[in-house]
Amino acid sequence: MIERISILGTGLLGTSVGLALRAAKFHGTITGWNRNPEHAQVALKMGAIDSVAPDPLEAARAAQVTLLAVPIYATLDFMEKLAPILGFEHLVTDVGSTKRLISEAGARLYNTPERAAFLPGHPMAGKERGGAALGDANLFRGAVWLFTDDPTAQRSPHSAALVQGWRELVVAMGSKTLDLDPVRHDELVAWVSHLPQFLATALSALLEKEVGDAPELKDVGGRALREMTRLGASPFSMWRDIAYTNTEAVQAALAALEQRIAHLRENLRTPELRDEFEQANRFRRE
Amino acid sequence: MIERISILGTGLLGTSVGLALRAAKFHGTITGWNRNPEHAQVALKMGAIDSVAPDPLEAARAAQVTLLAVPIYATLDFMEKLAPILGFEHLVTDVGSTKRLISEAGARLYNTPERAAFLPGHPMAGKERGGAALGDANLFRGAVWLFTDDPTAQRSPHSAALVQGWRELVVAMGSKTLDLDPVRHDELVAWVSHLPQFLATALSALLEKEVGDAPELKDVGGRALREMTRLGASPFSMWRDIAYTNTEAVQAALAALEQRIAHLRENLRTPELRDEFEQANRFRRE
Repeated sequence: MIERISILGTGLLGTSVGLALRAAKFHGTITGWNRNPEHAQVALKMGAIDSVAPDPLEAARAAQVTLLAVPIYATLDFMEKLAPILGFEHLVTDVGSTKRLISEAGARLYNTPERAAFLPGHPMAGKERGGAALGDANLFRGAVWLFTDDPTAQRSPHSAALVQGWRELVVAMGSKTLDLDPVRHDELVAWVSHLPQFLATALSALLEKEVGDAPELKDVGGRALREMTRLGASPFSMWRDIAYTNTEAVQAALAALEQRIAHLRENLRTPELRDEFEQANRFRRE
Repeated sequence: MIERISILGTGLLGTSVGLALRAAKFHGTITGWNRNPEHAQVALKMGAIDSVAPDPLEAARAAQVTLLAVPIYATLDFMEKLAPILGFEHLVTDVGSTKRLISEAGARLYNTPERAAFLPGHPMAGKERGGAALGDANLFRGAVWLFTDDPTAQRSPHSAALVQGWRELVVAMGSKTLDLDPVRHDELVAWVSHLPQFLATALSALLEKEVGDAPELKDVGGRALREMTRLGASPFSMWRDIAYTNTEAVQAALAALEQRIAHLRENLRTPELRDEFEQANRFRRE
């Protein structure tokens, strides 16, 4: 039923979606666009897209389903530009890491019987470095793909069917889907995604100051240190928008962690330390 | 030249050393002892040791090299008990994670021409769960094995040769060796090993409180969350001794991290955030 997809933004996620769709035997056409056309050429050579679109709005108009795979503010920009030129025969969906602002824009600009459908999505998958060249057909295998759809959306039967078709393609790419309220989504990912990222950034920046001038000392930390700082390589360009669009929830999570570390620091020689380890052990119990 | 080794403590590290010695074509005898004899039987069945010793002191006396692979306070206990019954034909070495107290005990009890040699060691390798059954011949491959030897030690030629022989076996097991002053060692590992561990414990304990009652939400975090909390599974029994014997350095590192996280939290919407990401990126640059 879905036969024409356009992917706006052929970075790591956009390129991986194209590859994963092909691996899942999607036989329709996939057009790709990227702000930097060289990156779209990389995606083309990798087989993630069939053609490079010169104009993103034209590409969306020609497709049934448009995936926005760009940073959050760029996603909001595209939503504004696409809403007036698409109609009930279109679906727009996205991969943005925060969902409150995007879901609000979706309710405001989409999801009437005459307009295009908008389905807010967020695959919980990625790598600490971006770019088309790292695209991976298996990136979404075993991952959770979150949706924060509006249950009150009034869609045409046509666009409602596209929503259902996209959900099926997400499952075909190997993901489990989970539906959440957008505010609850942003609070939850503040804990399980944004907190680990900003923590890894703070830890890596601190260690760069303390031991960064002695590369042999980085080796000393071994696998544990590598894992705890891997996300330190994540690019500011992506996380800036997350910091801006989920500020309060991230601040609350970071403040709670500061208190928890201080509590542990004050109890290195008291029986409280055992309680902290036991509670941590429970989190990791299968 | 080294033909008889005793391993006191056949947990993860002791068992892995036995397996790694065999993989490195060490052809002498390896005797093992464990406080819980069942765990020594596991190491025996895995081929990490040739025989289970009924008495650890007897085993050390019969060996040329004794490896103490027990927690730090147990290591200090064994050092006290072994010093009077061993002589210039013996070497005792260890794998303890903090080295100041152990190195002090070594200088006080060992390393004269008449006494046994003591070589303080610390392989930077491990797993978040312990036990003989997880023993791994490749655990030390590519790892750094730290030594905090006393350059003023007055050893017999015999025990000095055992020290050299043990260093060669460590290299044969696949490790790179690095020599540090014991106080500097404890400061360094506070940053690159103890800080990541206590941080992962605090993060895991906090997340257990926040999302622990909803297992499906743990899945949402994906690989990043799994890596950042893997060390949350580490046992209190091992880390208690580290917290007690390196308290000040660990406290200083934790306090510095609290400040760094607070700085990031206060700058989620300022240009400072870019600086934090760039400094973190530098730490991860190859």
